[in-house]
Amino acid sequence: MGRVTTRVPRVRFDAATGAGTPRPDTVVVEEPLELRVGATVVGTTMRTPGDDFDFALGHLLTESLIRSAEDVAGMMHCTDVDASGSPTFNVVDIALRAGVSLPPPRARTEQGTSACGVCGSRSVEDVLTSSPYAVGPGPQRLSPAVVAALPEALRERQAAFDKTGGVHAAGLATAAGELLAVREDIGRHNAVDKVLGAHARTHAPPFDDLVLVVSARASFEILQKAAMVGVPVVVAVGAPSSLAVGLAVESGITLVAFARGASFSAYAHPERLGE
Amino acid sequence: MGRVTTRVPRVRFDAATGAGTPRPDTVVVEEPLELRVGATVVGTTMRTPGDDFDFALGHLLTESLIRSAEDVAGMMHCTDVDASGSPTFNVVDIALRAGVSLPPPRARTEQGTSACGVCGSRSVEDVLTSSPYAVGPGPQRLSPAVVAALPEALRERQAAFDKTGGVHAAGLATAAGELLAVREDIGRHNAVDKVLGAHARTHAPPFDDLVLVVSARASFEILQKAAMVGVPVVVAVGAPSSLAVGLAVESGITLVAFARGASFSAYAHPERLGE
Repeated sequence: MGRVTTRVPRVRFDAATGAGTPRPDTVVVEEPLELRVGATVVGTTMRTPGDDFDFALGHLLTESLIRSAEDVAGMMHCTDVDASGSPTFNVVDIALRAGVSLPPPRARTEQGTSACGVCGSRSVEDVLTSSPYAVGPGPQRLSPAVVAALPEALRERQAAFDKTGGVHAAGLATAAGELLAVREDIGRHNAVDKVLGAHARTHAPPFDDLVLVVSARASFEILQKAAMVGVPVVVAVGAPSSLAVGLAVESGITLVAFARGASFSAYAHPERLGE
Repeated sequence: MGRVTTRVPRVRFDAATGAGTPRPDTVVVEEPLELRVGATVVGTTMRTPGDDFDFALGHLLTESLIRSAEDVAGMMHCTDVDASGSPTFNVVDIALRAGVSLPPPRARTEQGTSACGVCGSRSVEDVLTSSPYAVGPGPQRLSPAVVAALPEALRERQAAFDKTGGVHAAGLATAAGELLAVREDIGRHNAVDKVLGAHARTHAPPFDDLVLVVSARASFEILQKAAMVGVPVVVAVGAPSSLAVGLAVESGITLVAFARGASFSAYAHPERLGE
């Protein structure tokens, strides 16, 4: 539990000489996690252990299975053990508050229909209709200097990345540039769920005055998570995808990408940016 | 179809001055793809369009839904259209050869049991027991100089990355360092499915004399795909995860990571490496 990194044997090779030198290394831990609400498995993912309750809460929110932390009565790690008898802490059991129940499973077309309706604009529309929180006006004036400083601020708080080079991070910041929370995970979407869940413990969505910062690229899934809890600004260190741009435009999210050093690019709703 | 990149509006900001300059940019396309075998949806993923049949074939193989390309009688894009009436090419219909059928859905515990058996070693074991192809001895002597040169060779063939900075690549190489195929995708696991599927069109697994090169980190899922088609060597530009190392050790795969410049590190089965 909370085992974020682990030591493994390693042989380091020099290509010029072909020589290999044994030198143990630290790698990021990846383990499966199962989320259960009562007897129903609501999600299984590979993740980095630690902040599992934040992850669970954030995941329930971004999947629109609950509306706020108020809906959750309690969470506990299942006392499962691995082959050697050690506890794995890889199942989180979630109890909903009395009177709250899971929404029915989404109408997914497991059986094909004659109309093959799978396309990007449909995916965008699905998010807009399923999110309980529309993206509000958000911060009216976000300083470019503040935006440009966020990736470095995030980087400074990435403890596991320093050790392993293999972990993504997500942070939530105020419009003034204060980082309220940072979470790390081998999966960038998990890091986002964790940090949203961490904030949701003490704040009810929509998170309409916050900025989500991610160490990674901005894909559809990252924007989807922001949209599901009403976050109006997403800042990504990496590149954006076409569908992430499309969802940002339609949902009203300011999408900043390639935030590196003294410059960055806005791919949607740049009107919030300015001194 | 095959629309890998697209132009979008963008405003580039200079943090020092706060000034924004409109400058259109090229981003990688991300669109949903649905794979159907008859009336059964066997997979839905966000992917970069292009090489969809390679992806479909590779995905069926790495999910152990077929044993080789021989099992597939034909594939076609569904003629679905988006809201504007344009074809989306986002559904691939797969026909299996007469006498071939999908395996029954895996026994997934949708209902919780008293034994919460979710752990990394169980995940590794699942791959070892479900893969139809054990990893063989593979190349007996793989030159460190050849391994070190693979990431650059892969990089040189990444057309979409050059344009967008947002695409992963996977390649299949011989033990002599010849790159046989390269495929790109916004998702690193999709790039791996695509390149394995491309090779599977003309070769039956196991691919026991090949090296899989990935532009990304080495997570469990990447090693899982290699193991499912018997690839004995995986070379990653990025960091490995604990579970990727575990699966490589158990399945007999040589796992190289941090392959950058003149050095790299082997996290499993270094015995294949040497001049």
